[in-house]
Parts: sequence; C-alpha cells; structure tokens
Amino acid sequence: MIKAGVIGATGYAGAELTRLLSRHEETEITAVGSKTHEGKKLSEIYPAMRGICDAVCISNSDVIELSDVVFACLPHGLSQDIAKACDDAGKLFIDLGADFRLTDEKAYETWYEGEFKYPELHERAVYGLPEIFRDEIREAKLIANPGCYPTAVALGIYPLLKRGLVEPDAIVIDAKSGVTGAGRVPSQTTHFPECNEAFTPYKITEHRHTPEIEQTLSHAAGKRLKITFVPHLLPINRGILATIYLRAKLGINEQALREAYESFYFGEKFVRILNPGETASLRNVRMSNYCDISLHFDRRTGALVVVSVIDNMVKGAAGQAVQNMNIALGLPEGTGLTMIPSLF
Amino acid sequence: MIKAGVIGATGYAGAELTRLLSRHEETEITAVGSKTHEGKKLSEIYPAMRGICDAVCISNSDVIELSDVVFACLPHGLSQDIAKACDDAGKLFIDLGADFRLTDEKAYETWYEGEFKYPELHERAVYGLPEIFRDEIREAKLIANPGCYPTAVALGIYPLLKRGLVEPDAIVIDAKSGVTGAGRVPSQTTHFPECNEAFTPYKITEHRHTPEIEQTLSHAAGKRLKITFVPHLLPINRGILATIYLRAKLGINEQALREAYESFYFGEKFVRILNPGETASLRNVRMSNYCDISLHFDRRTGALVVVSVIDNMVKGAAGQAVQNMNIALGLPEGTGLTMIPSLF
Amino acid sequence: MIKAGVIGATGYAGAELTRLLSRHEETEITAVGSKTHEGKKLSEIYPAMRGICDAVCISNSDVIELSDVVFACLPHGLSQDIAKACDDAGKLFIDLGADFRLTDEKAYETWYEGEFKYPELHERAVYGLPEIFRDEIREAKLIANPGCYPTAVALGIYPLLKRGLVEPDAIVIDAKSGVTGAGRVPSQTTHFPECNEAFTPYKITEHRHTPEIEQTLSHAAGKRLKITFVPHLLPINRGILATIYLRAKLGINEQALREAYESFYFGEKFVRILNPGETASLRNVRMSNYCDISLHFDRRTGALVVVSVIDNMVKGAAGQAVQNMNIALGLPEGTGLTMIPSLF
Amino acid sequence: MIKAGVIGATGYAGAELTRLLSRHEETEITAVGSKTHEGKKLSEIYPAMRGICDAVCISNSDVIELSDVVFACLPHGLSQDIAKACDDAGKLFIDLGADFRLTDEKAYETWYEGEFKYPELHERAVYGLPEIFRDEIREAKLIANPGCYPTAVALGIYPLLKRGLVEPDAIVIDAKSGVTGAGRVPSQTTHFPECNEAFTPYKITEHRHTPEIEQTLSHAAGKRLKITFVPHLLPINRGILATIYLRAKLGINEQALREAYESFYFGEKFVRILNPGETASLRNVRMSNYCDISLHFDRRTGALVVVSVIDNMVKGAAGQAVQNMNIALGLPEGTGLTMIPSLF
Repeated sequence: MIKAGVIGATGYAGAELTRLLSRHEETEITAVGSKTHEGKKLSEIYPAMRGICDAVCISNSDVIELSDVVFACLPHGLSQDIAKACDDAGKLFIDLGADFRLTDEKAYETWYEGEFKYPELHERAVYGLPEIFRDEIREAKLIANPGCYPTAVALGIYPLLKRGLVEPDAIVIDAKSGVTGAGRVPSQTTHFPECNEAFTPYKITEHRHTPEIEQTLSHAAGKRLKITFVPHLLPINRGILATIYLRAKLGINEQALREAYESFYFGEKFVRILNPGETASLRNVRMSNYCDISLHFDRRTGALVVVSVIDNMVKGAAGQAVQNMNIALGLPEGTGLTMIPSLF
Repeated sequence: MIKAGVIGATGYAGAELTRLLSRHEETEITAVGSKTHEGKKLSEIYPAMRGICDAVCISNSDVIELSDVVFACLPHGLSQDIAKACDDAGKLFIDLGADFRLTDEKAYETWYEGEFKYPELHERAVYGLPEIFRDEIREAKLIANPGCYPTAVALGIYPLLKRGLVEPDAIVIDAKSGVTGAGRVPSQTTHFPECNEAFTPYKITEHRHTPEIEQTLSHAAGKRLKITFVPHLLPINRGILATIYLRAKLGINEQALREAYESFYFGEKFVRILNPGETASLRNVRMSNYCDISLHFDRRTGALVVVSVIDNMVKGAAGQAVQNMNIALGLPEGTGLTMIPSLF
Repeated sequence: MIKAGVIGATGYAGAELTRLLSRHEETEITAVGSKTHEGKKLSEIYPAMRGICDAVCISNSDVIELSDVVFACLPHGLSQDIAKACDDAGKLFIDLGADFRLTDEKAYETWYEGEFKYPELHERAVYGLPEIFRDEIREAKLIANPGCYPTAVALGIYPLLKRGLVEPDAIVIDAKSGVTGAGRVPSQTTHFPECNEAFTPYKITEHRHTPEIEQTLSHAAGKRLKITFVPHLLPINRGILATIYLRAKLGINEQALREAYESFYFGEKFVRILNPGETASLRNVRMSNYCDISLHFDRRTGALVVVSVIDNMVKGAAGQAVQNMNIALGLPEGTGLTMIPSLF
Repeated sequence: MIKAGVIGATGYAGAELTRLLSRHEETEITAVGSKTHEGKKLSEIYPAMRGICDAVCISNSDVIELSDVVFACLPHGLSQDIAKACDDAGKLFIDLGADFRLTDEKAYETWYEGEFKYPELHERAVYGLPEIFRDEIREAKLIANPGCYPTAVALGIYPLLKRGLVEPDAIVIDAKSGVTGAGRVPSQTTHFPECNEAFTPYKITEHRHTPEIEQTLSHAAGKRLKITFVPHLLPINRGILATIYLRAKLGINEQALREAYESFYFGEKFVRILNPGETASLRNVRMSNYCDISLHFDRRTGALVVVSVIDNMVKGAAGQAVQNMNIALGLPEGTGLTMIPSLF
C-alpha cells in the first residue's frame, strides 16, 4: 500500500482528498496535517468521517516523514518550502495550491504578490491536467494540481485552440462556482443568509485564476492570448459551470469543431462530450471526477458557445490530485475514482 | 412625525426594523446606532438600502438623544443601561433583546448568567406580545419584545391553556427556524456549505427561549409548567415553524378547541386561524407580520397537534416591535405593517 | 379608486401583480380571472393571501367588463383577442405576455409561430419600458409589458448604445434567472430535487427574448444589431442577473461610460447606478422594483463588463406593469411601488 | 457475477439502486425496467449515468427473466404480482415498495386500501431491517425493504423499547424529510419555487408509514403501541431526521439508555451511536448507508430526546436494499456500500 499524507487536511480540498483516499484501493492514509487543528481527530472536524478516518492531525513535517506521497492543500505561498522538503526527501509531492501552477514568475508576482523561492523546483514542476499533460505527469515528482476554474475552462476549449479552429482573441468566459470553492473559513460573503437566494459576480476581471487559464490556452493556441474572465458565486455547495463564448474561424463548421473534441478526448475516462442537442449540466457531474462538455453553434450569429462542467471539489481539486498520483505512480488512472455522479 | 432611533441597526433584527420603519407613515428614522460600524452608512452594510436609508451609524447615546422612541437590537446584557438612559430621558424604549423578557431574576441568572441591574425597571417592563398583553403595552414605557420562538409558541397554544382545554404537562415543542435567527455574524454553523442541504437540532432542551416560553404558558395555565423544547436549524433564510404536541383534557372535542382560538383571536389583524383540513406553512407568512395557526386532532390516538408559523424577522422581531410601538403611542396597530407575505 | 382587473391571476406574474395591486393606494382589485381555477378563491391557490385577497376567479370577459384597467398575464398567443375586447370597450390594457412586444411581425412569426391578428392594435401598442419610452406610455391605451430578461438587459446597456460609446456588434449576454421565471406549472426541470443544487444553461441562443432584446438595443444603436444571449436557470426563487460583455469604442474611457449612465438615468426612481468598486447583486433588489447596474472596465484587455440585476417578478413583470399603469393614468410613477428590497 | 434486475428503475429509488449496483463488485445489472420509459436508455433519463449505465429500459417480465435477483421500486399495489412471478421462477425478490411491509392485512386495507392477493407470500415475506431482523433475512426469498421514515425511527429507538427502558405510550415522532422522498413525478408541492425557502408538515397523523413504524416498535415492546407521527418536507434533496420524544421508565438513567444502544448495535457497520454532547446531523450521513443516532436527556424535565438520521435514498431505500441482497446471498454485508458521506 502506498503511504499517502495530506497537509491541510481540514480545509475543504484536503478533507475531500482524505475522503477519496480513504477508499482508494492502493493507498493508506498514513498522516493528516493541520496547523489549526493539530492534535484533534479529523473526524472531530468532520463528524461525517466518524469511524472512517479518525486519524489525529499532526504537523506538516511529520506528515512528510510518514508518507510516500505528500499532498498539500494550503493557501498560496505556503507550499514552496514543503515542496523543497519533499524534494530533498525524494517524495512525490502534489500541490493543490497555486504556488507551482504558473511558469512565469512575473505573472506569479503580479497576481499572487509572491516570488519563486526555488526556481529549479518550478522548472521541474508539472502542470497536472492529465488529459493535456499526461506524459509529463508520468515522469513528475512535483505536480501542480490545477485550479478549479482553469480545469473546467481548459478542458472545455483546449482542443479548439490546439487545432486552430477558433479565433484566439476576445474569448469570454462566464463562470459560476458553488460555495465550497470559497473554502471552509466563514465570512460575510459565505454566511448562509447572505449567500442563499442570492447570486453575484466577484473579482470581475481580477480573479487569480485568470493568468493560469491564459497560460494553458496560450499553450494550446501557440501564442499568448488574453481572456475576459468573470466568476460568479452560485448558492449551491459544489460544482463549476463555465459558459465560454468564442468565434469559429472562417469556414469552420460545427462538424469540424465536434470532431476536434472527439479525437482529442478519444479514450478519456473522465471527459464526456455531449451529443448535439444536449446541454452540459452541473448536476450530472456532482460528486464525480467527470468533466461534461457541450457545444452550441448559433447559425444566426456565427457565435460558438461551449459549456463545461466539473465538480469543483473532485475534478477541480481532490479527484484530479488522485488522478495525478495514479499516473505518476503508474497505477491505473481511474483507481479510487469510480464515483458515479449523484443523481439528485 | 415620530422620531425613531435604532440601536444595533446593522444586526439582522435592527436592519429589518430600520427597513420597516423607513416605510412607516408616522415615523422618521432620526438615528441608527452601531458600535461595529460607527461612522459608516447603513447602506454600505446593506447595499439593498441604497437611496432608501443612507443614514450614518452613530453612538448609542446620540441615538437616544435624537429619538422619541428608542429600539435596541443587541445581544443580551447590553440593554439594561440603555433602558435606564431612556427612562431617565422619558423616552419610550423597546428592547428586542432578552434583558427584560423574564420577570424572574433567578431564571435570568440561570439561563443568561446575568442579573437585574435596575429591578424597578424590570417591574415596569411589559412583555410585548400584543395579542395577549395589549392593555399593558398601551401604558408601557419599557417594552420587552418577545423572542422569536416564544412568539410562535405562545400565540400557538395560549388560548388552549388559558381555557384549560389541554393538559399543561408534558407539552412537546419541536421548532424549526431559518438561519437569520442566528444573526449576522458568520460562524462555522452558518457557513453556507455546512448549513445548506443540512438540517440539525441544536441546544436540545437547553435553548434560552425555554424559560420565556414557560413563563408565558404558565401565565396562561395559571400554574408553573415545564416544556420540552427542541429547536432545529432550517436551511432557509426566514421563518419559524413550531410543531406542538399536546393532549386535550378528557371530554374536550375538536370543536371546543377550535372555538377557543376563534374567540381568543377574534378581530386580531395578524393571527390567522386556518380552516379544518388546512396546514400552516412557513411560506405563507414570509416577509409579513402574520402568525398562521392550524389544529390537527388525531382521533386514532387522541393526540392534538398545533402548527404555528411566523416570519422570525417580522412577527418574531422587527414587525412585532413596530406593532408594540404603534400600540404604546396610540397609533392604529397595523400602521407600517401592511406587508403581504411573499407568494414565492 | 381605479378598478383593476387581472386576467391570468393565478400564474406567478398574475399573482404577484394582484399582491402589489392589493396595497396600491389608488386601485381596488375588482376582478381576478383564471381559466384553470374559475370559481375558486385566489386565496385557495395562494393561502398566503388569506384575508387579503379572497376574490373568486371569474371568466376573462367578466374581468374586462368589471375593470377600468385590464392586465393579462397569459402565455403568448392569448392576449390579442383580449386586447381587442379592451380596445372596443375603451379600457386601458396592459399585457404582461409576449403578444405585443415585437413590432416586427416576421420576428413574431419566427420566434413565436404566431401572427398579428389585429395589425392596427400592434401599431398602437407601446413597449412599456418606462425609463426609455415614458412619453409614449403616457399616451398609451395598449401597453406591452417587457419580458424579464429584456428589461434587465435593456436598462443595463441602453445608454451606452444610445450614446454610441460601445461597439454594437458581438455583444454577449450571459443571463441567469430564478425559477419563478419558469412559471407556476410544475415540470421535470423545475422539480425541486432536479433544480436544487444544480445549474444549467437552457435554450442556448434560442430563447424567445432574443428578438425582443435586439429590438430595443437596435433602437438604441440606430441600426439593426444581433446579440449572443444565453440564459441559465438559477436555483433560487426570484431575480435575474445579466452579465453583459462589450467593447468600448476607441478612445472612450470609463468616465465617459459612467457619465452616460448618470445622465440617462438622472432622476429615475427605480434605477440605481453603483459606484466604482461596487458590484450589482441580485440580493439587493429582491422583492423590489429596483434595477441595480454596475460597470467594470478591464484595463488589461479593454473589455467592458456590465452587471444588471432586477427582481424578475417585480421590475421584470408585475412591478413594471404597475409602473406602466401609473404613468398611463397620470398617477405618481412610484405609487404602490415603495417596496424596499428584502435584506435577507 | 450475480445478475441483478431493477423494475421501476427510472424512479428515484430505482435509479439510486441502479447507481449503487453499477459499482457493486459482485453484481452486474442485467436489466432495468420502466413502463413509462420503456425503450429509452436509463442515461437518457439520468444523463449523469452517461457511459456508466446505458442499458435500455425493458418490460417487467423481461427483467424478471434476465435476473437472479429482482428489485421492484414501484408505487404500492404493483409489487404483489411481481413477487408471485419471482417466486414461481425461484428468484430472490426485494420489494422497495410498501406491499409486503405490513404483516396485518387489516392495517394494509386501512392505510393502503388494498388487499393481500397471495397471503402465503405475505407469510414468507421478511421485513428487511438488517440490524433487527438479520437472521430472517438470511433465509428469505422475498424481502420487504422498509420505508424511509420507519428505518430512521426503528433504528432510533428499537433498543430502548426492546429493553423496556422507556414508556411505550405517548411516543412523539417529529420527522423531516428531503424532497427526493416525494419521488420523481413533479407536483405543485415539489415545484421549486413553492418548496424552496419553505417548510411544512404534511399528512399530519395520517402518513402511511405510521402503521409500519408501530409494527416494528410494537415488536420491540412486546405489546401493541400507538405513536404520534408528523412528517415535514425539508427544502433539501436528501436525508431524513427524526426527533423522537420519549420518557425513560422510573429509575432508568442516561447510562443505562446509552448502554442499551451500544450493546444492541455492537459490531454494526452502518449504525453510529454518537458520544454524549454530540448531536446527530443529516449532513453527516448524506450519500451513505449510515444511520447516526444521538441521545439527549433533559435532567430538568426528565424528557428523553433521540435524534436519528439517515440518507432517505440510501439507508432509507436503495442502500438498505443492497444490504438485504448481500445478506440473503451470503455476501459480506457491506459489499458495494462503502460510500463515505459527502462532507459538503
């Protein structure tokens, strides 16, 4: 059994990861770490885990020592030293935070107000979006697990840009996320009576996932591109739906667009391209590692609309982290990820 | 125009009260007070109020000075000095907190861990449940606005106990409240992802509204009685529904029970007794000052079930406070309280 | 008192309208009509209305006969004959359905599969968006109350197009609506367990409000324009939020954009332009007739984002209908529309 | 692999069962039946199942023929003939409907207005509540899967009645259920805008689960008892919480009560007795087969409150059916039931 350790296990991503790893056939959770709750059982923080994971939260360094694979689920800025420690100890490190996602230090400075402490680690870090970078992940020792919005968006339109079927400029991304995306710490914004029966965009054109999205889409397009990205807070627990507005290049018809998806995602376990006439819905991926994508072509105006949905906590965080671990360790990619979406 | 001042105007009860007073034909809001937000506009805290009430939050003492009627919407323990100041200044004081609700200092000590600082004020304080104590309210200068649960429960079964139609012992009250009842300060319990799609009882048999309920019901029964009271947190914003389990006394039939309600509440504007076959529902009183009550008699077991619903923020707090003010000032009782329940 | 009659009073728009008219100082509801529920009290369908409006539903022709002002809240296709009957009887008719919104019969045929039965009525029909067509409404006897999405969108960007400050092509409108927008008739889509905790776009680029939006925006731009419009179903009861993506014309800065709004909406009672740094939120307009609008300029990409929010049942339906009636009858425009948004 | 067939697979219980069986290591789904949707793929009705279960719905008789184990998820009255057909064909039959739950035909007539068509089948039917009737289930060929409320209630207080620790009379059960309990067919009651932000009791003292609850509790008490049972509709998708009010017999203290639970449920996989001070919450069992139970003793009044929670679709329906199948077939009882509750 692979020894897995989770740092930041009491946050939402960390807890979901611990939950998934608890049923993973090839791993055992050897350590859960939490600064805030050190000394407490995980099941005291999440009573749903009573009898399932009653491990006591320990320090980060103890987690590293006890584990073969280390996951960190921390606010940005806190993972670089952990990555270094894992690297020194020769352990596989998967970071669910933002520290290793951007390859451009400038962008990291601008958007996160931080710097690259160990540039050589950043060079070896692999962006863990398996459907796009699977080969690199196979060889990786340090994996930057993508953000939730970037996962939904990149999976949603990467094939179109890669094949050069759409105009790379003026892409508009209107994204909506459930409240777990805001994390476990209470705030006025996430206080039930202010969040329930409400709906609001936030960080309009200023969200930190913007450069990450642009990085992957630029990689696809083969040129630097800029997007307009507006996230909104949905009064539901889980899920991200991104509605993406593009223009097909002259002469590209719906069939060509659809084929790009089908060939690019051929054989993929976790990406489902919907049939013409179907619309991707957040409810069909909840609690699962699926990404559902639907295409909509407006003959009247020539506009192309892509809808991409994931569970932000699974494919957008913990599930994808497990998928990355599976790939990096040579396990079957779907191990521990057989969850069927909740139907209701 | 009557000069109304609201202390604690940025909490939920205070804000709802300010909202109601803003459309009251006989009052003008002359001052809103807030310790936390002193110097800020109320509409900065509640942007819904932009252009409607842009008053700047000031200190408590300034509120008292500027107002003819002072409302306080504060955690328990903070209203006694304000009551004293209002009394000294000859102003009508309506307390939406708990400090003056209990007449028995012992009970106040036990449940609230406080003491009566100005016993003479407590003697003159009137419990502001208009349908039961209207005559006293008319003469009052210090009104203790009832708690939300006690309002729903007392209105729900007072007539039965008053008429001696039901056994006063072993009354079970299973109550459910929307999350605004927990106030505006965020907490883990009220964090959207933990509150949404969830449902939990809390403070089982230990809720501070217990002695207040017992006080009013004992008053009705003419003897001290004890109840079993279990509140639950509903994943909705507003409303309280109390399901109350009683036993009719031997020989009392449904007709007699129903008549007790109809005569007791005859002519009441804000209490609606439902017809046989109808069931009180929280959705029919939202945003209004109504209390809907339905009776259900189980011929098979002899049990009597009463369902009583209010909007916890209106009849359970701000609306009732306005009703009390109207009575104490000799205005028509329904002034400023013509809100029709939201239909959906 | 003006005699008001509501046809289709048991649907959501009709019921909300009846609710608003019940507290309107200058009207009395003389008749409510319903085919499905003829002979039943409105308060049997909406028990929230017990004791407030217990009128019995009668036939459409009886409603017309008994009223000075007739409102129809019906599916499209059913209002033309009613309009004719009102016209013959010389009564003011306000249609909350879609039959008279489009001036172009071709568009009506294409999108609604219907035809103009009385072309002369269509010529005299006025599009009832008061902030834009107030002068025409003043003289009108037949008012087409706008759709909910078109209201939010048109108010949101009309000034920019009118002043020629933005590119009229390639406008993208990503709109989200609460479930009351789908009406009162149950369906699989609106069945609680399938709608709750879910989120889905629908009728992508095919929604019937598209030509209505284009009609008003074309009127503003002075040329025919086409938009990309994607509505989504939000798991909340009320409200519409439209996120609108545009490009300012070369050389137009944020200040110019903002001034366009401020001068266009100067003195308007129901439109609130938010300050820089503020974001329009659905929760700040619920239960009220307000439209809140915020502007967001992305210096990095040059994109302009406008957020426009209304309560779909009030400013998007019943409230606007009352506003139109007030204007057409020469009453103060805000009569009966003083509702403050619910704070929570 | 065991061949499993599900009749009524497109209803909520049937679909959840199909979902669980899709990941059960020892079964394959050989047939799904649906009258309404015969000829359609299950994944057309539940797009969440795309690529997971794309089986086409067939007729009931075909399902029986193709399967070793037959599950029926049908409204009451429709299972008796299916049971007969399974019995004739020698197949294990597990009925998720109500036809075989009551042993007393009189009660079935009174509450369900039906009759026992094959009395000998009723005699051999076993009530499938594993924690109480495991030995009988092991030998059964016809299993009546319990109702959702009866499961939560019986597990909640069976040990207390069995040991004679509480008064068997005047037990009050205030239960609350998520909306999936009302099934998949839309209705006014479950229409999102009428169900959301609302809360209402229903079928007060008249719910069909009443005799089923009384049957099991009477079995525990060794005498016929009657209960007061009031269900409520919670605006959430899944879960049942029952708040149960009892009186301990004279001289019975909290310790004795707690021990009764701990010894009765010793070694049980799916029942978790909470520690003193903890409160059972619906959110801790969602999506899992657990039943969490907490005890609360009121020293002030002597009242005993028990809180019992399950996921109505899992332990209250499909999960328990799988558990019953496992037992009847001699598989490890937890096979296919390793789901960890969703944390949020």
